[in-house]
Amino acid sequence: MIQIGVIGAGSCDEKVSKMAEAVGAGIAKKNATLICGGLGGVMEAASKGCKAAGGQTIGILPGKQKEDANQYIDHIIVTSMGHARNAIIAQSCDALIAVDGEYGTLSEIALSLKMGKPVVTLGSKWDIEDTWVAASPEDAVEISMRLILTK
Amino acid sequence: MIQIGVIGAGSCDEKVSKMAEAVGAGIAKKNATLICGGLGGVMEAASKGCKAAGGQTIGILPGKQKEDANQYIDHIIVTSMGHARNAIIAQSCDALIAVDGEYGTLSEIALSLKMGKPVVTLGSKWDIEDTWVAASPEDAVEISMRLILTK
Amino acid sequence: MIQIGVIGAGSCDEKVSKMAEAVGAGIAKKNATLICGGLGGVMEAASKGCKAAGGQTIGILPGKQKEDANQYIDHIIVTSMGHARNAIIAQSCDALIAVDGEYGTLSEIALSLKMGKPVVTLGSKWDIEDTWVAASPEDAVEISMRLILTK
Amino acid sequence: MIQIGVIGAGSCDEKVSKMAEAVGAGIAKKNATLICGGLGGVMEAASKGCKAAGGQTIGILPGKQKEDANQYIDHIIVTSMGHARNAIIAQSCDALIAVDGEYGTLSEIALSLKMGKPVVTLGSKWDIEDTWVAASPEDAVEISMRLILTK
Repeated sequence: MIQIGVIGAGSCDEKVSKMAEAVGAGIAKKNATLICGGLGGVMEAASKGCKAAGGQTIGILPGKQKEDANQYIDHIIVTSMGHARNAIIAQSCDALIAVDGEYGTLSEIALSLKMGKPVVTLGSKWDIEDTWVAASPEDAVEISMRLILTK
Repeated sequence: MIQIGVIGAGSCDEKVSKMAEAVGAGIAKKNATLICGGLGGVMEAASKGCKAAGGQTIGILPGKQKEDANQYIDHIIVTSMGHARNAIIAQSCDALIAVDGEYGTLSEIALSLKMGKPVVTLGSKWDIEDTWVAASPEDAVEISMRLILTK
Repeated sequence: MIQIGVIGAGSCDEKVSKMAEAVGAGIAKKNATLICGGLGGVMEAASKGCKAAGGQTIGILPGKQKEDANQYIDHIIVTSMGHARNAIIAQSCDALIAVDGEYGTLSEIALSLKMGKPVVTLGSKWDIEDTWVAASPEDAVEISMRLILTK
Repeated sequence: MIQIGVIGAGSCDEKVSKMAEAVGAGIAKKNATLICGGLGGVMEAASKGCKAAGGQTIGILPGKQKEDANQYIDHIIVTSMGHARNAIIAQSCDALIAVDGEYGTLSEIALSLKMGKPVVTLGSKWDIEDTWVAASPEDAVEISMRLILTK
């Protein structure tokens, strides 16, 4: 089963939320599983989109409680490891899509590149060599799938 | 969604394997998700039993590669954290069932008790205060569900 | 530099505290470095004994803040990883001495054995195969040093 | 005790090595402890400089063995956690100095900023908001100390 990560901030505005939701839906339509950090903002919007399109979601939480997961998470991994959980997200995904994002997301992007994982950015303010810039949520999913399947 | 862990050694004899398989099937029948370490032995047998009974399985791997997971794992978490992944298994489960097992399993049992998680043992050589001893695989699942639902 | 771990509960009575303090002093006299979980109880008493005898101490904390360390810790490792930090303690030590202890300690003992580390117990209620039982704090340090040097 | 991290690539050219060595020496002169990833390149050069100037060094290793540490490390933390050890480095330091560096370093910088730790860069190709750019190794240490002491 292909596992695609969606990374981004724990709170976001309406526009970013819509993008994340569309990315989640796109992942479901490809029959891939969505992996995210399990919390709010981009993570919640992507999970919502994925569930609405019939997909499955995994949330890898930084804290200690299953209850921290947003309502659209099917499978909850409780790491109790704070930011170190970002390494688990990156390591578990076949490709990652970064939606907008702050320092946590930048850290995740750099870590994923370090691990040799394909990274697609959507609406990112960071311009990082070796990442793929997507023009739309659908494009982000298409690029991810292509990078995974041709690896 | 209730998440029940099955812990035990990475290799085991036929008798232990059959017990683990029946535990996995029992978890599926309760519509709970099975979490395990994702490798061979007890982990593989339990996953096999769970899938055969229509359930879902999550494997939390110690190593670096998705490919390490046994063939019955639906969702693969790649921790790259060695033995520290045991803490993630314990923290992510609502209850844990230990099938037989060596030091790795004992460590997992003690860690789960430390976290306040219910632990049921089946065919264990360890006699540890505060664990529940099950008489059969079915009994192990029944006890786990009861402990989770009455918590 | 030889690194010896002292593991035990985060709070303890006077008798156990005296044993831990003597173990810490013994480690310092062997010019080994003491590693512990950095908190109170056995960890604090051992660190105190080690410092008083001129040794060096490392505390590997489960939480997020340097300030959690007891006052006898020279070097503070802040893992922010909860119980998973126990795996780091075990992996970093050449041998471990368990003083009394509850489930957290049992988990640490089992994990250390799983990793192939020598484990010496002092006043332990657990009777675990493959651990070495010490008759006194001095004995615990002697056995540890011998196991390390003859490995 | 103040703990300052030096982060950078595991292999580097002569020029970067000299810078890292001077940073390590500067940290020792301030009576701070140097924390690094414990391996080669920038980590080794910084550790060498720190030891030559009479300081103390801690190496937080990604792998499983004490033997992976470079020869200038006094205290070895064996995480066996791969890239997730970067989170422990960031969390354990009062400030971090990034010398040159690739994606691993970028990840570490972003993670440190996310945790609210002061980050000073020296010869970095990344231009990241909220980091402090140092003109020389001495400057990097001075800025770090000032940021720590005025926090």
